[in-house]
Amino acid sequence: MNFLKYLFNPSSIALIGAAHSADRLGGIMLQNLTRFKGKLYPVNPKYKEIMGLKTYSCAEEIPNPVDLSIIMRPASETPGILRAIANKSKIAIIASSGFGEVGEATLQDEIMKIARKSGIRILGPNCMGFINRYKEIDTFFVPLEMLERPTKGKIAVVSQSGALLHCILEAIKSWGVGISIAVGYGNAIDINECDIYEYLKEDHHTSLVISYIESIADGRRFIETARSLDDKKSLIILKAGKSLSGQYATLSHTGRLAGSYEVFHSLLRQFGIKEAQTLEDLLDSAKALSFYHPVEGNRVCLLTNGGGAAVLAVDECIRQGLDVKKVPANKMQKLKALFPVFYGVKNPIDITAQGRDEDYITALKEIYEDYDGFLVIAFMGVPGITNRLASLLKNFKKSMNKPLVFLTTSSPASETLIRDVTRAGIPVFTSPERAAKGLKALLL
Amino acid sequence: MNFLKYLFNPSSIALIGAAHSADRLGGIMLQNLTRFKGKLYPVNPKYKEIMGLKTYSCAEEIPNPVDLSIIMRPASETPGILRAIANKSKIAIIASSGFGEVGEATLQDEIMKIARKSGIRILGPNCMGFINRYKEIDTFFVPLEMLERPTKGKIAVVSQSGALLHCILEAIKSWGVGISIAVGYGNAIDINECDIYEYLKEDHHTSLVISYIESIADGRRFIETARSLDDKKSLIILKAGKSLSGQYATLSHTGRLAGSYEVFHSLLRQFGIKEAQTLEDLLDSAKALSFYHPVEGNRVCLLTNGGGAAVLAVDECIRQGLDVKKVPANKMQKLKALFPVFYGVKNPIDITAQGRDEDYITALKEIYEDYDGFLVIAFMGVPGITNRLASLLKNFKKSMNKPLVFLTTSSPASETLIRDVTRAGIPVFTSPERAAKGLKALLL
Repeated sequence: MNFLKYLFNPSSIALIGAAHSADRLGGIMLQNLTRFKGKLYPVNPKYKEIMGLKTYSCAEEIPNPVDLSIIMRPASETPGILRAIANKSKIAIIASSGFGEVGEATLQDEIMKIARKSGIRILGPNCMGFINRYKEIDTFFVPLEMLERPTKGKIAVVSQSGALLHCILEAIKSWGVGISIAVGYGNAIDINECDIYEYLKEDHHTSLVISYIESIADGRRFIETARSLDDKKSLIILKAGKSLSGQYATLSHTGRLAGSYEVFHSLLRQFGIKEAQTLEDLLDSAKALSFYHPVEGNRVCLLTNGGGAAVLAVDECIRQGLDVKKVPANKMQKLKALFPVFYGVKNPIDITAQGRDEDYITALKEIYEDYDGFLVIAFMGVPGITNRLASLLKNFKKSMNKPLVFLTTSSPASETLIRDVTRAGIPVFTSPERAAKGLKALLL
Repeated sequence: MNFLKYLFNPSSIALIGAAHSADRLGGIMLQNLTRFKGKLYPVNPKYKEIMGLKTYSCAEEIPNPVDLSIIMRPASETPGILRAIANKSKIAIIASSGFGEVGEATLQDEIMKIARKSGIRILGPNCMGFINRYKEIDTFFVPLEMLERPTKGKIAVVSQSGALLHCILEAIKSWGVGISIAVGYGNAIDINECDIYEYLKEDHHTSLVISYIESIADGRRFIETARSLDDKKSLIILKAGKSLSGQYATLSHTGRLAGSYEVFHSLLRQFGIKEAQTLEDLLDSAKALSFYHPVEGNRVCLLTNGGGAAVLAVDECIRQGLDVKKVPANKMQKLKALFPVFYGVKNPIDITAQGRDEDYITALKEIYEDYDGFLVIAFMGVPGITNRLASLLKNFKKSMNKPLVFLTTSSPASETLIRDVTRAGIPVFTSPERAAKGLKALLL
């Protein structure tokens, strides 16, 4: 059994630095932890009780051994706290900053030594902690009203940065899908991305892992665990600190040197592990993969009622190595017979501003066998395109096992269509290039 | 005086193909045209009156010469209509599709011949028409409830595609800025981007021109008019049809061959005309330029409360050729004295999750003289960051004449901050890479 069960699924938690109100990080954390079903021990010398919970004056006073301790006290206090809990806590999250990321290497070394000597495992320091959505455990210092947590789902997010974790969770929520575990692991002086990958590999709630990385401690182990995870689940990685200055910024941010990006990049490529180049690429691929399993093939067909958006999408498909091949001659003849003379029937299939919802289905049925993936582009604002398109696509999707992504305008008028197409299980994009990249993520 | 005044500022308009209800494109157009202050002549053989306006049974019946005629009838009828109006209309917009873009070259040639012979100038065919926001003229076939028009402003949008025009207008509206003229010019058999650039160069409402192009008729004239426009105003171009397949898609979409993208690209570069690579790049640059005039310099400083986002932004700054130079040693000393020990003071300046609104201003004041542009990254969800930051930045901005862009999470909790920072005249982005690209657009 993986040791991280005491992190992600503890039966008892101590919060050292619990505060009584939500204007302090330790107060927000305690509030978020009140949904935890196990035993919870707040620690604060000034109070006997906080939020209805018996409160302990110091770490030494916690009466029983605990699986997990969370430390939210100034960096300078952490060595003392760690010594006090080392023999009664299996794992500690050090949320506080003020360690390697600001050059306080001595302090960081000190807590590493305490950890090694006592055997206590550490997440952090300078980290966001985690949410285990299936166990309702939430150690974040961000209140629910500032970051509504995504629902239960199959995506795990593993982020070295808390801010990026926040951004990724906001995105996941906007796609209407959910998470299993989300973890911000910070400076990673002990527990790192590899340990977490190993845990997630066995976590049956998780089928897609999104990983944001700034620095790697052990390149060989990283590649091994990433490959092994990717064999069983989908893994997408975004590596920051690509530029030298970015690496330098990483150093001041997490205290770990980022290493040569080129080596990292070529290793991922060699072993077929998906790597995103920007945050938006990461989110686009993840969104697509949260709706579909990828399939073999690279032939794509675009169906549109707006020629310009299709041209931009074709450009991006080509850049992504997809094959925007012509509709076969016999199918073109069939489409010409079915459609008004001014529709385009090659690829993109262009039903123009006069096109109607059902035209997309007519065309999709005709050319379904000739392609591996589909991009449906539908701009509202013309009489023929209505919210009915969502249910037509939903029905068509039942009989298909190839990926289809959807592109429309980001506008108040399209909100219902976007919501309903998403609910139909189809990923929706609002930029031609991003839609093309999303489709690419679904084609192997 | 430029001939296009009869297009963009006509005193009379005929709408051939006016319909009585909004479920037809000709009905939507008439509805949008009712705000026109000049004389309006709807043409439809079935009605004596539509929407309270006297209606004419055919083009021949329009009693007086008109500046502008708009044709919204099937392609096959357009030659006849054009002959009927050729001697009494100065300009015709042919909105209908079914011409060169679907291989109907003969029909397209026929209308070109009629135009040349009679002297009538043509916008289109297969085009969206235009909005002149300062004159309240609106020939779009998209109803207001599906595309709320941006307010009056200084941006002109010149788009060969109606769908892209729609997307760009939605974006402009979301930035809280406004437009002067927006035009979709379609197949461009006569009036093209060059004619429109020449008009906009003299239009005193316009100071920024966003241009989406699929094909160019005359490369030399294009470069000349684009340079001349760019000398006087800001011009940003997005060229679609970069790939061969994209060029092919352009051909089926507008009936004009796209030409070699490489030649186009190198000419723009040679003459210093800004070119975006994707729709998002176009929108990011345009957003930044709609808030600031670009300045000389490339030294940028990042200020953040989320290290990860700053690392990604630094990576993109470097890719964009910006100089993310270290904070000078004496300023670092000053910042160290002003800030808690765990803040990062190099560049990015990292005020961590414990940072407060006023810390950004403290840091900006210290390093203002050492940089040419600034990226402020502020994630809400921590107690120190509030909506007050918007007014602090607004005040600081009064004393500065260098560009500052803002990055935060796209989330319901950040909506007020995004709105208020935008109102303070600062462009807001929600992705690190896009924020960096926005800042780049403001540094020459």
